[in-house]
Amino acid sequence: MDFTMYETLLQLPLFQGLGKNDITEILTAVRFHFKKIPQDSYIYRQDEVCQEIAFLLGGTVVADTLSYDKSYMLCEVLPVPHVVELYSLYGINPRYHASYRAVTETNVLTIDKSYLFELLSRYETCGINYSNIISTRSQYLHKRIWQDVTGGLRARFVQFVMQHCCRLGGAKTLHIKMEDLAALLYDRRINVSRMLNKLQNEGLVCLRRKEIEIPALEKLLNIE
Amino acid sequence: MDFTMYETLLQLPLFQGLGKNDITEILTAVRFHFKKIPQDSYIYRQDEVCQEIAFLLGGTVVADTLSYDKSYMLCEVLPVPHVVELYSLYGINPRYHASYRAVTETNVLTIDKSYLFELLSRYETCGINYSNIISTRSQYLHKRIWQDVTGGLRARFVQFVMQHCCRLGGAKTLHIKMEDLAALLYDRRINVSRMLNKLQNEGLVCLRRKEIEIPALEKLLNIE
Repeated sequence: MDFTMYETLLQLPLFQGLGKNDITEILTAVRFHFKKIPQDSYIYRQDEVCQEIAFLLGGTVVADTLSYDKSYMLCEVLPVPHVVELYSLYGINPRYHASYRAVTETNVLTIDKSYLFELLSRYETCGINYSNIISTRSQYLHKRIWQDVTGGLRARFVQFVMQHCCRLGGAKTLHIKMEDLAALLYDRRINVSRMLNKLQNEGLVCLRRKEIEIPALEKLLNIE
Repeated sequence: MDFTMYETLLQLPLFQGLGKNDITEILTAVRFHFKKIPQDSYIYRQDEVCQEIAFLLGGTVVADTLSYDKSYMLCEVLPVPHVVELYSLYGINPRYHASYRAVTETNVLTIDKSYLFELLSRYETCGINYSNIISTRSQYLHKRIWQDVTGGLRARFVQFVMQHCCRLGGAKTLHIKMEDLAALLYDRRINVSRMLNKLQNEGLVCLRRKEIEIPALEKLLNIE
C-alpha cells in the first residue's frame, strides 16, 4: 500500500484512529473514487441529493449557501481535508445544504453511500467517528440557536453571520442587499450602513456593492 | 416473548422496521432496563452526561431548557413514545440539552450507551434508523436557522419560540421577564407587552407573571 494513501485516509475524520491493517482491509473492501475537479466548477450543488461520502483533500473550496427565499447568499472558504455534509446522507431531507465550488483545482475522494454501514459495522472506530461528527454538528447548531444576543445592531450582525456559518473562522462573503440585511436585523437601512462602515474602518469587513466581505470571522467574533 | 414487549419495541424509532426474530435476538443480547419514574421528579437533568439510550414509553414528560445565561426557560410537553436526545450520546458535548421532568408517573426503557454499536453493526435497519434520527435533527436545526423572518414583532416572537422548540406543536411555556424578552426581540417592553396581549385576546397565548403559556404552538404558527 502506498504510504501517502495510508496517511491521507488517516487524516480524514471518518477514519481517524484506525490501524494500518484496518486501512489496508478497507482499501480492498470499499471502492474509493478519486476525482480532480477543475478550477471554477461545482463539486456539488445545493439541494442535489447527497449520495456519496466525499472528502475534499486539497485545493480551495468555497461553500455557497443560498437562503430559502433566495434573497442572499453566504460563501465560506472551507479548510481541507473536509468531509462534505456527512449529516446529509440520511434523514428527512438528504440533500446538500450548500453548493461546493472548486476555486482552484481540487482533489476529491468519494465513497458510495451504500458502503457506510459496512464501514460502521466492521470498524467500531468508524462508527464512533461517524456518530461524533453528526452529533457534534447537531450540538453545534443547537448552541448557535441558544446563544442569544441582546446587544446592539453590531452584535446582531455578528450573530447573524455566526448562526449561518459552517465554521466560526476564516473568510466569508455575504451577498446581500442593504435593505434586505436591514430587514433581517430589524433596523433601518441607514443604521445598518453606518454600522458596517464602522466595521470597515476597523478593518473587519470590506464593503462592495451588494457584498460584505469578512476576511477573518474570528476577528469579528473577538470584538464582542 | 411477550407480545406487548414486541409491539412496544417496534414502536420505538430506533427499532422500527425490524422483524420479530431480530427483536427476539436483541432482547437476549442487549440489557434493557425498565424504570418507573414517580410523578414530579426529574428523569435527566440539563448538562448531565448522556450515558444511555432512553425511551419514554408512557406518562407526561416535560423538557425544560434553561438558556445559556439562565435568564429564561422553555418548557415543552413531549409526545410519547419519545427517544431522549440520541444526538447527545456522542459528539463534542455529550450532555443533555434539557431537563426531563415526569409530570405524571412515567415508564422509561433504557439501554446502556455501550450497546449502541452492537445494535448498529448487527442490524442495518437500526443503523439506518439511528442515522436518520440524528441527521434529521441536524437538518431540522439548520432549517430553523435559515428560515429567516423579516416581519414585525409578532413574527419575531413566533420565530423565537419556533427556533428554541424541539417540536413544532403542542403545549409550551416560556418563563421569561418581559424586559428580557423585549431585549431578545429588539423592541421596547411596551410594544412586546401589547403584542402579547393581542395574542392573548386571540386565545393563542395565556399570560401570567414572568410566564407565557402557549397551549398549542401549531395554532400560533398558522397565523403567520
